[in-house]
Amino acid sequence: MIRRPETFREKFNIDVRTGHEVVELDLAGQRVLARRLADGEERWEPFDRLLIATGAVPFCPDLPGASARGIFGVNSLQRGIELRRFIEEEKPQRGVIVGGGYIGLEMAEALVRQGLQVTLVDRAPQVMGTLDPDMGALVAEALRGIGVTIYHGESLAGFETSGGRVTGVVTETRTLPAEVVVLGMGVRPDSRLARAAGIPLGDGDAIRVSSRMETGVAGVWAAGDCAESFHLVSRRPFYIALGTVANKHGRVAGITMAGGDAEFRGVVGTAITKVCDLEIARSGLQEKELSRLGLDWVASTIESFTRAHYYPGAGPLAVKLLAEKGSGRLLGGQIVGTEGAGKRIDIVAVALHAGMTVEQVAELDLAYAPPFSPVWDPVAVAARETAKLV
Amino acid sequence: MIRRPETFREKFNIDVRTGHEVVELDLAGQRVLARRLADGEERWEPFDRLLIATGAVPFCPDLPGASARGIFGVNSLQRGIELRRFIEEEKPQRGVIVGGGYIGLEMAEALVRQGLQVTLVDRAPQVMGTLDPDMGALVAEALRGIGVTIYHGESLAGFETSGGRVTGVVTETRTLPAEVVVLGMGVRPDSRLARAAGIPLGDGDAIRVSSRMETGVAGVWAAGDCAESFHLVSRRPFYIALGTVANKHGRVAGITMAGGDAEFRGVVGTAITKVCDLEIARSGLQEKELSRLGLDWVASTIESFTRAHYYPGAGPLAVKLLAEKGSGRLLGGQIVGTEGAGKRIDIVAVALHAGMTVEQVAELDLAYAPPFSPVWDPVAVAARETAKLV
Repeated sequence: MIRRPETFREKFNIDVRTGHEVVELDLAGQRVLARRLADGEERWEPFDRLLIATGAVPFCPDLPGASARGIFGVNSLQRGIELRRFIEEEKPQRGVIVGGGYIGLEMAEALVRQGLQVTLVDRAPQVMGTLDPDMGALVAEALRGIGVTIYHGESLAGFETSGGRVTGVVTETRTLPAEVVVLGMGVRPDSRLARAAGIPLGDGDAIRVSSRMETGVAGVWAAGDCAESFHLVSRRPFYIALGTVANKHGRVAGITMAGGDAEFRGVVGTAITKVCDLEIARSGLQEKELSRLGLDWVASTIESFTRAHYYPGAGPLAVKLLAEKGSGRLLGGQIVGTEGAGKRIDIVAVALHAGMTVEQVAELDLAYAPPFSPVWDPVAVAARETAKLV
Repeated sequence: MIRRPETFREKFNIDVRTGHEVVELDLAGQRVLARRLADGEERWEPFDRLLIATGAVPFCPDLPGASARGIFGVNSLQRGIELRRFIEEEKPQRGVIVGGGYIGLEMAEALVRQGLQVTLVDRAPQVMGTLDPDMGALVAEALRGIGVTIYHGESLAGFETSGGRVTGVVTETRTLPAEVVVLGMGVRPDSRLARAAGIPLGDGDAIRVSSRMETGVAGVWAAGDCAESFHLVSRRPFYIALGTVANKHGRVAGITMAGGDAEFRGVVGTAITKVCDLEIARSGLQEKELSRLGLDWVASTIESFTRAHYYPGAGPLAVKLLAEKGSGRLLGGQIVGTEGAGKRIDIVAVALHAGMTVEQVAELDLAYAPPFSPVWDPVAVAARETAKLV
């Protein structure tokens, strides 16, 4: 059961003011200016402690035709519902997805399943930019396998419209006919109010917070997709907009705002998704991040099976691990494969938290039985191969 | 493809002598006495370095009727094939499984699937003695759900036979009619040759070995189900007969015998199996082991889902974690649940290797997306609950 806000409101006697927008933070005066959306009436609300949880906003291109009917972001449940209704009612034949990240991939699959002819455009030279190019290529292959046409390295230039409806997506080099367009171009933290109030921002303009989720201004907390995290592998501040991280932020902020003791020590960059039968997961740092940090690394990719190769349902997977040259410290991992592949990334995630070397990962006492794994778990095999290069 | 021994023999020019049994080790003389099974001819074979890999032997009760037709162990592929052939040809109606461990459970499922009426007898007060009683009860419930009748706390007393065929299993308190009986009463290391030769034995009479898999006698190695391991959580020698451990033993022994450098540092007691739709996994130490070690612990069991509760295919699972009172150090974990539950034990396994506290486990950046997990992975939820009791 999903709890309705009313439940919390009743339980904790919270004054929930829906249909309002905060338009200004007056930190010195310990008050916020709230505007009622219905009639524009404004009112100052006082606070002792303030939590900023403004979330993220999707990148929305300010391009010709961007407001035409048939162009959708899917940054809210409501927009998702609208998109589905549009497809059901208008029966578009051709869909274009702009962006090859988590949202773009999931929406590509969704449109294919709805029977549309789907094209995906990404300005990056690969889909799934959170994977290294070699692993991203496996994802592209799977997308093509379900009939998705992919154009890499092409920026969105605008939209063709007719009578207020989208009819095509224009890139630098071509026009793609489309009756429906889904934008999955990523998000940025909604830190506008914080910035205007002089609260210090950090990575990607996310609100800088301590491990207690306190901002640089006393009495003001921030949590969720508007707030920064700390990357435990790079040992640097890091912006990532993920539900699991936002949830941890909120828990720590709630405890510390109420005077309790809690810390959010950080993330290791774990993420997972699936496109049709393909599971895609990553944790730690990828090659382009390592380059940026000036780290010297080795990497190895192995192919194996999700279960004992002779067991029904065993399917292929690829595991790539990256380790620091010399020390052998695990720096990251990526997994692409069939059912049972993806959640293996948790092995990598825990090992990253623990600061293990790939040699240590190769020795781990991981669970084996034919329905679950080959005798040597693919992650351990990749670790062994990577250890040879250290 | 499973490689035949011939492939290795040819590749490495190994003199493979099948159909022989070693009957004596003469360590001082650096030779072994091999007897050809076909004709009993004996011959001394010299060695510079010796590997003992004699494996394990199943507990076989020396009880009235134990050699009757229809009574099977499944300790070799050949015995499994014979059992299947027996069921196909003789069409038994009633099967009794003796032993409620991994083999017993898997065979109970196999016989149910073959249409037999199945009864399982175990002398222990629960099935799956490698789980704590509360978690074992979930497994028993699932077994009953597929129609298996279970008798706990009843030792095997003998067999009833007729014309050389088994007709029933006799326990201390009852006789169970049966046309086929499968014994899954565990194994013990086959260390008879080693013991006779004066090689020091350890836990459960397994051959004591160093982390290089060297026995207490120079020039003699041991590996696999006949050899001891080291438990990284209890910090004590530990006997466990599992394919994944044996495989690691063999790799290290092979390297060090050949003059290379390798170490097998130990295990954390990870194991996994499945009975019908139920996945069962454990790692670390369970309550009875902790009692024996005199450790003071806290434990918490939580119920959650394998995926986001609203996602198709989400099923229930229970996670139990145990931690040291005071320090909060993770000591063990057990998982019982539907598809996707079991391999989560690897999170526990890696955390045990790393010596993490349950508080650290609760903070892990584990992979979340609705097809794979609730926002808080059940293992993290269990860790959070356990941390409250520390």
